Amino acid sequence: MPVPDPILYPPFNILRLSHVEYRVTDLARSRAFYVDTLGLQVTHEEPGALYLRAMEERGHHCIVLRQADRADIGVLGFKLFDEPDLDKAEAFFKSKGLPTEWVERPFMGRTLRTRDPWGIPLEFYVKMDRLPVITQKYALYRGVKPLRIDHFNMFSSDVDGAVAFYNEIGFRTTEYTEDDETGKVWAAWMHRKGGVHDVAFTNGRGPRLHHTAFWVPNPLNIIDLLDLMATTGWVGNIERGPGRHGISNAFFLYVRDPDGHRIEIYCSDYQTVDPDLEPIRWDLKDPQRQTLWGAPAPRSWFEEGSTFEGADMAESALKAQPIIAP
Amino acid sequence: MPVPDPILYPPFNILRLSHVEYRVTDLARSRAFYVDTLGLQVTHEEPGALYLRAMEERGHHCIVLRQADRADIGVLGFKLFDEPDLDKAEAFFKSKGLPTEWVERPFMGRTLRTRDPWGIPLEFYVKMDRLPVITQKYALYRGVKPLRIDHFNMFSSDVDGAVAFYNEIGFRTTEYTEDDETGKVWAAWMHRKGGVHDVAFTNGRGPRLHHTAFWVPNPLNIIDLLDLMATTGWVGNIERGPGRHGISNAFFLYVRDPDGHRIEIYCSDYQTVDPDLEPIRWDLKDPQRQTLWGAPAPRSWFEEGSTFEGADMAESALKAQPIIAP
Amino acid sequence: MPVPDPILYPPFNILRLSHVEYRVTDLARSRAFYVDTLGLQVTHEEPGALYLRAMEERGHHCIVLRQADRADIGVLGFKLFDEPDLDKAEAFFKSKGLPTEWVERPFMGRTLRTRDPWGIPLEFYVKMDRLPVITQKYALYRGVKPLRIDHFNMFSSDVDGAVAFYNEIGFRTTEYTEDDETGKVWAAWMHRKGGVHDVAFTNGRGPRLHHTAFWVPNPLNIIDLLDLMATTGWVGNIERGPGRHGISNAFFLYVRDPDGHRIEIYCSDYQTVDPDLEPIRWDLKDPQRQTLWGAPAPRSWFEEGSTFEGADMAESALKAQPIIAP
Amino acid sequence: MPVPDPILYPPFNILRLSHVEYRVTDLARSRAFYVDTLGLQVTHEEPGALYLRAMEERGHHCIVLRQADRADIGVLGFKLFDEPDLDKAEAFFKSKGLPTEWVERPFMGRTLRTRDPWGIPLEFYVKMDRLPVITQKYALYRGVKPLRIDHFNMFSSDVDGAVAFYNEIGFRTTEYTEDDETGKVWAAWMHRKGGVHDVAFTNGRGPRLHHTAFWVPNPLNIIDLLDLMATTGWVGNIERGPGRHGISNAFFLYVRDPDGHRIEIYCSDYQTVDPDLEPIRWDLKDPQRQTLWGAPAPRSWFEEGSTFEGADMAESALKAQPIIAP
Repeated sequence: MPVPDPILYPPFNILRLSHVEYRVTDLARSRAFYVDTLGLQVTHEEPGALYLRAMEERGHHCIVLRQADRADIGVLGFKLFDEPDLDKAEAFFKSKGLPTEWVERPFMGRTLRTRDPWGIPLEFYVKMDRLPVITQKYALYRGVKPLRIDHFNMFSSDVDGAVAFYNEIGFRTTEYTEDDETGKVWAAWMHRKGGVHDVAFTNGRGPRLHHTAFWVPNPLNIIDLLDLMATTGWVGNIERGPGRHGISNAFFLYVRDPDGHRIEIYCSDYQTVDPDLEPIRWDLKDPQRQTLWGAPAPRSWFEEGSTFEGADMAESALKAQPIIAP
Repeated sequence: MPVPDPILYPPFNILRLSHVEYRVTDLARSRAFYVDTLGLQVTHEEPGALYLRAMEERGHHCIVLRQADRADIGVLGFKLFDEPDLDKAEAFFKSKGLPTEWVERPFMGRTLRTRDPWGIPLEFYVKMDRLPVITQKYALYRGVKPLRIDHFNMFSSDVDGAVAFYNEIGFRTTEYTEDDETGKVWAAWMHRKGGVHDVAFTNGRGPRLHHTAFWVPNPLNIIDLLDLMATTGWVGNIERGPGRHGISNAFFLYVRDPDGHRIEIYCSDYQTVDPDLEPIRWDLKDPQRQTLWGAPAPRSWFEEGSTFEGADMAESALKAQPIIAP
Repeated sequence: MPVPDPILYPPFNILRLSHVEYRVTDLARSRAFYVDTLGLQVTHEEPGALYLRAMEERGHHCIVLRQADRADIGVLGFKLFDEPDLDKAEAFFKSKGLPTEWVERPFMGRTLRTRDPWGIPLEFYVKMDRLPVITQKYALYRGVKPLRIDHFNMFSSDVDGAVAFYNEIGFRTTEYTEDDETGKVWAAWMHRKGGVHDVAFTNGRGPRLHHTAFWVPNPLNIIDLLDLMATTGWVGNIERGPGRHGISNAFFLYVRDPDGHRIEIYCSDYQTVDPDLEPIRWDLKDPQRQTLWGAPAPRSWFEEGSTFEGADMAESALKAQPIIAP
Repeated sequence: MPVPDPILYPPFNILRLSHVEYRVTDLARSRAFYVDTLGLQVTHEEPGALYLRAMEERGHHCIVLRQADRADIGVLGFKLFDEPDLDKAEAFFKSKGLPTEWVERPFMGRTLRTRDPWGIPLEFYVKMDRLPVITQKYALYRGVKPLRIDHFNMFSSDVDGAVAFYNEIGFRTTEYTEDDETGKVWAAWMHRKGGVHDVAFTNGRGPRLHHTAFWVPNPLNIIDLLDLMATTGWVGNIERGPGRHGISNAFFLYVRDPDGHRIEIYCSDYQTVDPDLEPIRWDLKDPQRQTLWGAPAPRSWFEEGSTFEGADMAESALKAQPIIAP
């Protein structure tokens, strides 16, 4: 990968990923998974929708579960630094010929709705209702004790293009996989908030969401979740792990929700606030980039993902050999 | 399985498994594995042999590594309660027409050498040199922080026979796998010392040693070992795990030594001192008995094992479908 | 301490400690502590009494909470190996001039009620109702995830006498504290089931119960309990810890129930099944025997304990300097 | 505390705390503490000085140990975002009448040396030599497995003043302790890099450094360090903990180096990148702000700290009642 100069002064200031809307086909069953099993907290409930947050979050929600006929992804949300950043974001997306719209969102202030060049639905905002601190309400902790939303990972049929676009709006690459022979980037991890990633792109039939990740305190919480899922009827929803990624050094587990949406449980990556942090390059042929300990991922993990509402799936030139890293 | 009445009054009193002799083809390489990587402590070293103990053991050794032309198992050792038990053991094995011999063993008192009916070499003793306590010498802890030897697991071509024989010498079954259709026992876990097992027998081409297990403090020690092995050239020696066994409820990892001898790292089984503890039955078709969390074991784990020196491998009628549990 | 020869052949075979009856002044409040906070499971409930077990136990109960006017200890229970051991126990206690009585206990078979020479109420039995296995019912795990009852620790005004008596009935000393100057034993830890102790005696105004201990999987469960108690109104019931004992090497926490009965949460001691295990001697002046890491225990921990129903408190010659180890 | 508006646009952009120079009286002994016991990595060694980094850091050093006649603090270092920020920083400190100087530092680019209004020696830079990634060189991990420097905590005789000054240069308050009766701020935690703090100020005789903190993976690493220190001659250097702070929610341990410089080992605080994150207020009379679990800190922890080279200690009006939070 031609490592880009650090993107020091982007056109608008994205703080971090913020939330995702999952469209689900059986809201009660999804609630059993996200609330009773993973341990997310319900912050609002209405017919057809459920709003959830993780234990250390003070923003109103990080997941919206919405009853739908078809299970796909409604939108990926990002929080911006300050109000002027919203207007700069609108100008930027307009300048690219991308659709922009100011939309009303419950519990949120001014919200800009748009799509990236591949059709991924995005929304940007500055203000979301702030809720009381529950970090130390230990009686509420359940399941895997999720602390915060950590990142989105997407299949892309044009990883080079995605990296260039998200670089342009300020995401800095921390790690990437490159094909030694072709020099082509197969996957990249990019951050705003100071961890390994807020977003990652992986070569594959896209655009699709590969997974949303949640941060937990330590590997034993992941073991607790495995024990719980294995003995409460969810054993078939455990897809991969536990293990350590070479890329990001994170301890991980992948589970699938009742509609197949994939959730990663994740801990122990590293701090990346330095703008001169050198991206770590992994060779496509190095199996330890995916699992440091050597165990292979199942086929489903390489092939399956969630489509985005309203986005056409591109036909990837590379689709015959989907190669994904964490 | 026709669950036998608890074996309350065996012919002689076996306290616990004690030690194993591994015959290895490259002693220096084996040392790098057992000492530098797993973290066992060297208690005696001589040309061609290395004696090791784990951190809370006070007996002189739990493993003897002996340089040999062929990698196999020299003997499995068991500690008896009191001197008269040695003579009772001799009488018992003689009464079965099995070979008995009083042998000299360095660092050990009177030692009875024999074989079980399938040729597995066994030795029994009461006294072994006692070494200073190092449990709290935390500067010595390395690798996976092995605390003590925990059990032997063997392939047997006659599990029913093995269970009956080891029952007769006082081992009590804690868990077993049975074929619903035939009522045949496929595997059994049997203890003396109050944990889930000192020995286990599993249907397969036998007699072979499937693995020796070491007890460690908690799952994070196993994660530490995985990280260490994965980044010091041993990634190819990680075979299976980490995971939770349904049977025994233990958190496990299987690794292979440089000759392919399999070592299990193990924690968190349960106390079994009650003689009226009901054996837990698992159905052969229940995949969670092997891995509670559902991930399959690799083929090598079902098929490969260490032969015993001097024991003919029986041809098992069941060998076409080796089915092993932890 | 003149270390006694290992007590190989006691007059009757005690398997392990089994249960304790706590007399409490507010059963609902005690339930909030033991069930909702510590996480013990209710196995039977009736007006004025609650029966509880820990997660890996199959016997009906390890604690009986009984509504009473005064908070004290009803009885300490021990499980014997086989029916003839009950009769041998009766003969032994009778031979010492101690009171014996066959009593009816719900959920238990033949039960012998007696007292030790200092008046501590004891009961022995072989059969208790066996309950379904819940070890892997992970949805039931709560609080500190207690796995099993581990030991009783008692204040004694005659530690030498107590050690001699409990040696005589088969308890083997694993560690002890001795006064260098006087050669007097200040405290001793003694086991039957293969861990550091089933019972311990500590110099102090006795007989009183210092604490009952429960075994948990690992130190993080203890940290979880601290977080939970600290934020649900129980912070004043946290008495000492977390820490590591020098003696026993265990990671510990001491909490007090609503009546002041002290519970230890405990993990990671070591296996002691060898009858030739050398007792570890600690000097009374070594502060690390109590807390390996050096932090002192609060005064309450040295002075307060639970009286036994019907036992006169002896006036200890040593009471001016109560010195307790874990 | 009159909570200030978020400081969105500071005069120059501080990324994070970066390094500290400890002046020590016995470099070999300090090496035994920081390198052999805590597990920091030596990156450069020269007569009279040692440079160290933690396991995930790529900058050349986070600690410089310098042989000196007197044990104090040479300087606190901070990394800025970009070269122009260095010039803006110079202008800012000059405008306040504070001393500025461009100094040569080995392994570092342009470096601005200055002092805060109370005399605390500070240095700012953008470039420091970048070293190879060792995050996954698990064979190098030792001691407490320190991952990165986390924060500085200082005694201040003018906390209100310190908060106002550090707010002005962009630090945002995450938590603070206030005296209900007087409305006076007794302590404040302030960050730049997205955790609970890069710097904290605590009422006391100042300016002095209370401690420097290092981030570790999880609480079990802290327990490992306690066991190691307790059994290798460092038990007297364990000062406080382990415990959970109410403030910051972090799991902590405080140890003292051979000169008495205090080091905090720390994990599990929370993410604070939102500029609208509401500071959490603690009442000075709430004992759980310091230790969630209720155990008091020792007197030394409230009173002792490291002086800064060249800074006069102010006489605090409040010094009669030093009240410190983590």
